[in-house]
Amino acid sequence: MHTLGEIATFIDAELHGDSSLKISSLAQCGDAGKGQLTYIASSKYKKDLLKSAASAVILSKDLLADCPTNALVVEDVYLAFAKISHYFKIKSALGSVHPSAVIETSAIGKNATIGANVVIGKDCKIGADVIIGANVTILQGCEVGNNCIIAAGVVIGSEGFGNALDKDKHWHSIAHLGNVVIGADVNIGANTVIDRGTLTDTQIASGVHLDNLVHIAHNVVIGADTAIAAGVTVGGSAILGKRCQVGGGAVIASHIHLADDTIITGSSTVDKHLCAGHYTGFTSISGHSDWKRNQMWLIKLDKIAHYLNIKLKHLKGR
Amino acid sequence: MHTLGEIATFIDAELHGDSSLKISSLAQCGDAGKGQLTYIASSKYKKDLLKSAASAVILSKDLLADCPTNALVVEDVYLAFAKISHYFKIKSALGSVHPSAVIETSAIGKNATIGANVVIGKDCKIGADVIIGANVTILQGCEVGNNCIIAAGVVIGSEGFGNALDKDKHWHSIAHLGNVVIGADVNIGANTVIDRGTLTDTQIASGVHLDNLVHIAHNVVIGADTAIAAGVTVGGSAILGKRCQVGGGAVIASHIHLADDTIITGSSTVDKHLCAGHYTGFTSISGHSDWKRNQMWLIKLDKIAHYLNIKLKHLKGR
Amino acid sequence: MHTLGEIATFIDAELHGDSSLKISSLAQCGDAGKGQLTYIASSKYKKDLLKSAASAVILSKDLLADCPTNALVVEDVYLAFAKISHYFKIKSALGSVHPSAVIETSAIGKNATIGANVVIGKDCKIGADVIIGANVTILQGCEVGNNCIIAAGVVIGSEGFGNALDKDKHWHSIAHLGNVVIGADVNIGANTVIDRGTLTDTQIASGVHLDNLVHIAHNVVIGADTAIAAGVTVGGSAILGKRCQVGGGAVIASHIHLADDTIITGSSTVDKHLCAGHYTGFTSISGHSDWKRNQMWLIKLDKIAHYLNIKLKHLKGR
Repeated sequence: MHTLGEIATFIDAELHGDSSLKISSLAQCGDAGKGQLTYIASSKYKKDLLKSAASAVILSKDLLADCPTNALVVEDVYLAFAKISHYFKIKSALGSVHPSAVIETSAIGKNATIGANVVIGKDCKIGADVIIGANVTILQGCEVGNNCIIAAGVVIGSEGFGNALDKDKHWHSIAHLGNVVIGADVNIGANTVIDRGTLTDTQIASGVHLDNLVHIAHNVVIGADTAIAAGVTVGGSAILGKRCQVGGGAVIASHIHLADDTIITGSSTVDKHLCAGHYTGFTSISGHSDWKRNQMWLIKLDKIAHYLNIKLKHLKGR
Repeated sequence: MHTLGEIATFIDAELHGDSSLKISSLAQCGDAGKGQLTYIASSKYKKDLLKSAASAVILSKDLLADCPTNALVVEDVYLAFAKISHYFKIKSALGSVHPSAVIETSAIGKNATIGANVVIGKDCKIGADVIIGANVTILQGCEVGNNCIIAAGVVIGSEGFGNALDKDKHWHSIAHLGNVVIGADVNIGANTVIDRGTLTDTQIASGVHLDNLVHIAHNVVIGADTAIAAGVTVGGSAILGKRCQVGGGAVIASHIHLADDTIITGSSTVDKHLCAGHYTGFTSISGHSDWKRNQMWLIKLDKIAHYLNIKLKHLKGR
Repeated sequence: MHTLGEIATFIDAELHGDSSLKISSLAQCGDAGKGQLTYIASSKYKKDLLKSAASAVILSKDLLADCPTNALVVEDVYLAFAKISHYFKIKSALGSVHPSAVIETSAIGKNATIGANVVIGKDCKIGADVIIGANVTILQGCEVGNNCIIAAGVVIGSEGFGNALDKDKHWHSIAHLGNVVIGADVNIGANTVIDRGTLTDTQIASGVHLDNLVHIAHNVVIGADTAIAAGVTVGGSAILGKRCQVGGGAVIASHIHLADDTIITGSSTVDKHLCAGHYTGFTSISGHSDWKRNQMWLIKLDKIAHYLNIKLKHLKGR
């Protein structure tokens, strides 16, 4: 149990109300009751605030007058909520290596937590305060920076999918001689896979957040503070800049470059290099029979243009 | 070995033929031989039926006259086949916890089967008759109802991908304080991941079937008897109704609501709320050079409409 | 350390220069320095060749005159590079079964390497010289041919996603009685899943290469030397021919047939049977607001055709 005063200090909030109030847990505004702290991230939810039964609310200055209970005023409500959420998390035993983990001669940093059935190969470097979930595999020579959190089932350092065809059309895999080098403060979601580089290293810079079931191919370079949502496939040698955001289920083709601050809507296919900006590429959903009728014409657009005698040079406008 | 009589009783079929016949195994109609049982799910396959060498056939009443051998007449052939298939499955040792499993102080139900190298965190509740495959990870506080089957490599209760940006564009992850609560009779496919909720629980209702490599994000609620095929990405806080069917490789954006009985064709992107019905959204495949020519115009549709002076209000028809 | 002479022999190259030169490692042309071997796969990179500081270069005959250092002339540079890369790979202990692996009564071939925390069910057959990474699960009765390499976290032999609906709209899973049969020289990427067949076997022919996070459903048949990149979803009973290439993130619908030598661009949805050729089907990425404007018309193409009085029979041209 934390007092409201402690919480205010932790999130650097201006406290309006009873600093000795004991807060038992966090809850959504509509669900929150006695002893609970909630947050209002936007004035859209003002109505919820007015009738909230929470004992305290994190909010911005402009909503203070409408707050029926104790208030913690901050500049960025969502960020404050993110920070305080960790206060209420029951942590499993940290700083220990589970006896079932199989670790070859690797350097494990101070206070690192290695979960059950984790397998770490030779010559890896695992930073301080790293948390590695159960059933993770980290292969030979890979590096994980300080404060990283690696969720269950992740594989780091698998062989890249580089193959050469011989005359008989048989594939010869390339041995990937690079490693995976991961900076500090990186989060990696469950069952995500990061391949090692061919001759250089696959690089995940500090502050990167990867969601579940993401594929990062060989030689990929991801800039600092980039976030990639679940189910994204990043092809070999793609280079993503800093502070990019890639939505769930997107596919980034091999060798593509994304500039710093590029935003890709989920489910899009990135088939060209992109400058900073917000990009999208997928087919919006519609009723199945409508879709079928529209697809019939979509695969004939070039013929339609020909029939209507439309030339690219004709097309101006927006 | 089961007799045809026993099988008829099990699937509630009307037996036409020798009830003492011994059935050794199941087979496709075209492959089946002596001692084997097959099924004909549709009159389309009548030709196969006529020349089948199977010793017995599950079929519907209308095909009985064409059956050259012993027949089991049922109302729903495919369902009867599904039921009888389990009769012929060699089950590994059930009702036991593999000694290599790592289980913290969790409640494991009667007759539950826990596979090798499974890791179960603190305070989980695993129901009766649950079967958990090898290398599964279930994190602290999650609940799995009776009769669930969880395939190898699944992760349940991983942290959600909720992150707040600070002024310096660094991400701060939110600690996810909710759990995952899974009802009874749920099947979860291999290497699928289900994230825990932020403040409330991620909920998978009874009778849900999830295929392999599915991502279920934080706070998602999936209604009873919904089926989701492989490789689907379901974004955070999405709510899927009862009896929905989502095809393989589809992407459901965050915060989307699907009504009960919504069907999504595989590979579609669901970018809006949907009422009951059948919906689709992807680009049909075509020859690469045709695709290229059509895409050239697709990304100019708005300009074409402008050039042709087409207004939305002009468009009627079907 | 290998001498250039040894390397030339191994890749069957014509050596121009000092056969006793010691090569310490491989590097990209631009990065390579003293003691390093590089390669030039195309005359596009001639400029890099001219200023390379590498001690030796693998190249084709036409670039020999431009080579400033020792040269290894081969017919297929990329293939030669693929072969020699394995020379420089530090192999972990091969030919051993890790003591943490859980293996039921299965036949393990000569010189097979089984990684930590691998789980292999009853009656499996694992070929000679197979390498199985950590945390892999292979279920009862599955077969893996000689020389296969299976990366960490793979699941082979999980139940297929075949389900029958009853009158109350509850799903009844079908017990999958077939196995997975994998030929020789197959590579399977990390966290990929291959389901067992329903009544027959799921079949992966010799020489197939699968990347990470691929889903291969029940009853799928994949022909020899086909390569499938990461994140691909292959639906139930799909049949892929020999020497097909499927790009990352593609979706192949259930029951689809791909002829030998079919190439699918990454991210495409294969919703029809295809003859040999190169096929594509996705929406190219564009700026978000452009995409939005074009989508507005895309979902009205049929109405536009109607408004413009375009008939399918009108459309000729290319």
